[in-house]
Amino acid sequence: MAKVKKKKVSRPKAMNPRGFRDYFGVEVGERNGMLAKITDVYRMHGFDPLETPAVETVEALGKFLPDVDRPNEGVFAWQDEDDTWMALRYDLTAPLARVYAQFRNDLPTPYRRYAVGPVWRNEKPGPGRYRQFYQCDADTVGTPTVAADAEICGMLSDTLEAVGIPRGDYIVRVNNRKVLNGVLEVAGLLDMSDLSRFEAERGIVLRAIDKLDRLGPDGVRALLGAGRKDESGDFTGGANLSDEQADIVMGFMDARRDDGAATCARLRELVGGSQTGLAGVQELETIAELTGSQGYGPDRLLIDPSVVRGLGYYTGPVYEAELTFDILDDKGRKRQFGSVAGGGRYDDLVKRFTGQEVPATGVSIGVDRLLAALREKGRMDSRSHGPVIVTVMDRDRMADYQTMVAELRNAGIRAEVYLGNPKNFGNQLKYADARNSPVAVIEGGNEKAAGVVQIKDLALGKALAANISTNEEWKAQPAQMEIPRGDLVSEVRKMIARGREG
Amino acid sequence: MAKVKKKKVSRPKAMNPRGFRDYFGVEVGERNGMLAKITDVYRMHGFDPLETPAVETVEALGKFLPDVDRPNEGVFAWQDEDDTWMALRYDLTAPLARVYAQFRNDLPTPYRRYAVGPVWRNEKPGPGRYRQFYQCDADTVGTPTVAADAEICGMLSDTLEAVGIPRGDYIVRVNNRKVLNGVLEVAGLLDMSDLSRFEAERGIVLRAIDKLDRLGPDGVRALLGAGRKDESGDFTGGANLSDEQADIVMGFMDARRDDGAATCARLRELVGGSQTGLAGVQELETIAELTGSQGYGPDRLLIDPSVVRGLGYYTGPVYEAELTFDILDDKGRKRQFGSVAGGGRYDDLVKRFTGQEVPATGVSIGVDRLLAALREKGRMDSRSHGPVIVTVMDRDRMADYQTMVAELRNAGIRAEVYLGNPKNFGNQLKYADARNSPVAVIEGGNEKAAGVVQIKDLALGKALAANISTNEEWKAQPAQMEIPRGDLVSEVRKMIARGREG
Repeated sequence: MAKVKKKKVSRPKAMNPRGFRDYFGVEVGERNGMLAKITDVYRMHGFDPLETPAVETVEALGKFLPDVDRPNEGVFAWQDEDDTWMALRYDLTAPLARVYAQFRNDLPTPYRRYAVGPVWRNEKPGPGRYRQFYQCDADTVGTPTVAADAEICGMLSDTLEAVGIPRGDYIVRVNNRKVLNGVLEVAGLLDMSDLSRFEAERGIVLRAIDKLDRLGPDGVRALLGAGRKDESGDFTGGANLSDEQADIVMGFMDARRDDGAATCARLRELVGGSQTGLAGVQELETIAELTGSQGYGPDRLLIDPSVVRGLGYYTGPVYEAELTFDILDDKGRKRQFGSVAGGGRYDDLVKRFTGQEVPATGVSIGVDRLLAALREKGRMDSRSHGPVIVTVMDRDRMADYQTMVAELRNAGIRAEVYLGNPKNFGNQLKYADARNSPVAVIEGGNEKAAGVVQIKDLALGKALAANISTNEEWKAQPAQMEIPRGDLVSEVRKMIARGREG
Repeated sequence: MAKVKKKKVSRPKAMNPRGFRDYFGVEVGERNGMLAKITDVYRMHGFDPLETPAVETVEALGKFLPDVDRPNEGVFAWQDEDDTWMALRYDLTAPLARVYAQFRNDLPTPYRRYAVGPVWRNEKPGPGRYRQFYQCDADTVGTPTVAADAEICGMLSDTLEAVGIPRGDYIVRVNNRKVLNGVLEVAGLLDMSDLSRFEAERGIVLRAIDKLDRLGPDGVRALLGAGRKDESGDFTGGANLSDEQADIVMGFMDARRDDGAATCARLRELVGGSQTGLAGVQELETIAELTGSQGYGPDRLLIDPSVVRGLGYYTGPVYEAELTFDILDDKGRKRQFGSVAGGGRYDDLVKRFTGQEVPATGVSIGVDRLLAALREKGRMDSRSHGPVIVTVMDRDRMADYQTMVAELRNAGIRAEVYLGNPKNFGNQLKYADARNSPVAVIEGGNEKAAGVVQIKDLALGKALAANISTNEEWKAQPAQMEIPRGDLVSEVRKMIARGREG
């Protein structure tokens, strides 16, 4: 017998691409609230908004992502019809450099801009690691003064406090790439005859130092030398420094002292006669001075030589903000929350386009990580109320119910008519519950005839339900009351206020 | 003599990809302000926010764009490392259908959500036509009642008024795809034995009707018949209806009467015995009734059979909002501004994923077009003030100047220190001018010693400059004053207030 072949309907899968996720209700509100607070601090500091498109040409973006072993250098890229390669931006700095180069004659100098939006990385997704995430940046383009760097470091501190991280729970760390360059010069690594080899070696050293948090001093030391095998057995090549050279670099990372002045003094010793190194130390001293005089003491801002940042384009001061409180990781172990923002000076990014030096500095806040931190500490007020639900007792009287919600809304109360199938009244209350509604309004034929409505305090109902064991008590609860139809707005408002106090 | 070949440095071009643009300062602020107003109306109506990523799988997005003769069916698409085809979303509806199918067991029913964000179209760019633009949507998923459609039509009207379009300058037009299907059935076009051919023909008819605004009745008539040659000589194939069939369709488009009831009565005649058509008319009657009882009269909301919307996925009511005031086009000719929002019922979009019917309806506002309209009418208050600029007279006293801006900011006044090269004081004032600053603060060595500062009213200075012809008068202007250093905040605040009144 021949098999009957059933026609199989091929349906698309309802899922996100790997490494992407959706954000619902309260999550969206919390993020928007945080972004409003951050951009308000930026704006008060004189920064103006800029919104560039998600898509840039690949050549404009350049290749600056650290540790790139992914296709398309870590970006999502494709070819336009005219063969131009296009890509989703991987940060907000590369587009800023493009904008400044493109519009420099029309923009004020210095140009202070802030930007907020998603960026995309073509990275291997993992738990909590998404391929789209938000950044919120502020940059000053067109001025070489380290007063600009100092200002942004102070503003970063203000911003963290503005979103709800108290003093003591964060620290802004500042370092300078020039100091590291000076140290490498002293270590004999700077080979003027082969700068591209120096750049490559320096890149390996930078990335090794950047992993101090994760790998500890031994791990970094291994990466400065012959390389390192990780727990899974994978081998990462090292910078092949000699023991003496590696000692000098390790000494640099270890140069932090009790205050900025002492750290700078120690760095001054380490960079010896290197002009670059000395210039870097001088800049750090100025930053320490300017921020110190504005009240950003060592409880908020530190000179810390172990900060290098992974990105290849930094040329001077680099800075990052770290949250210092403990959280529990997946395995229940305590660990510090870590970095939530970083930035630095990148004097050559605009020059890529124009050939002319355009100094610039700026910071990027990792908004999603910062949100996660605040949730972790229970510092988000997520008691957001749903709308008042006007239930439907009589489906021919939708117009009456719509009139009620219109009245409520005109009085500033969020409200909607139940639009599901009204047959089962229990489902209407379940819906109100799922929406976290404070109040349900009920008007059947009898109420209509008597000129009254029932209003039900759902917040109180929930609270009572949690403490009530018998059905009788439940029924005796005073969470529902009959009111004149004309008092709808005022009585609902009172009930909501009562629920918020409770 | 051999030519000396100069090494040419290849620099990336500082420009957007074709069809993309940047938004600066006030433009960003205006858009965010409008989005806040729109989402506030949505929220008050009980809609909750949802933010999906920019990237979806191509199979989840589906193919619903109208008039697609572009590669990748009008989307920007590429392959992930695991060979999955991914694409940038082309609207916010397809991602919503995916989300609802994916999370339907966890979401309330009905699910009311709003969403705001950019969408991308791989279309031919043109003047004012960009490949990334904002949409702001509200949808109700999971309920078949036309009360949901009526609510969204009313809300659309409220939203337009909330963003500053006065009554009389807009109209919300409502139609129903089922009525059109009924008309096609009457015209003998519905061939149950070959539904896919019917779908294709219906698509051509829909797109022809959708062009009524642009092509006029003759153009549409040509597209319903053999096809149409445009001004450039390009030929667009037609639906190949017979003259009788085309007459019936044209009669449908022309069925609008003075009020909703009269239009519905006329449509009832046109759809004759078609069950689908009659169901559609019945729905329109209910929408007219519900919206009418809520005060959305014919000055705000019309039943209009000429509205069909281009997208392929609508199954019932369709609606759009049009601005009715005249603007001047590129060639100085008067024309109506046209459509700024549209939507409708799409009962089969979720079914694509799940196989189960999930009725849904929603609206999308074209935010950028709406902004353009408000600017056109001069209804945006773009007098946004820049920050107060504290000038630098003595570069060794940056800390003093930073203290001043900190004081101003703590008092809620946007302020910054000039961070460019301070040598040329004129440049500092030029910068303040470019930033649209209300006030400049000046403190040289003499002022410092005397415990005073100079504050300069830049708004007044500008106003005076516009009316002053001689240099003497200019110098005599009272726009600059000396104040005690301790009164900085209060005096600057007074000066800003004065400037805003002026």
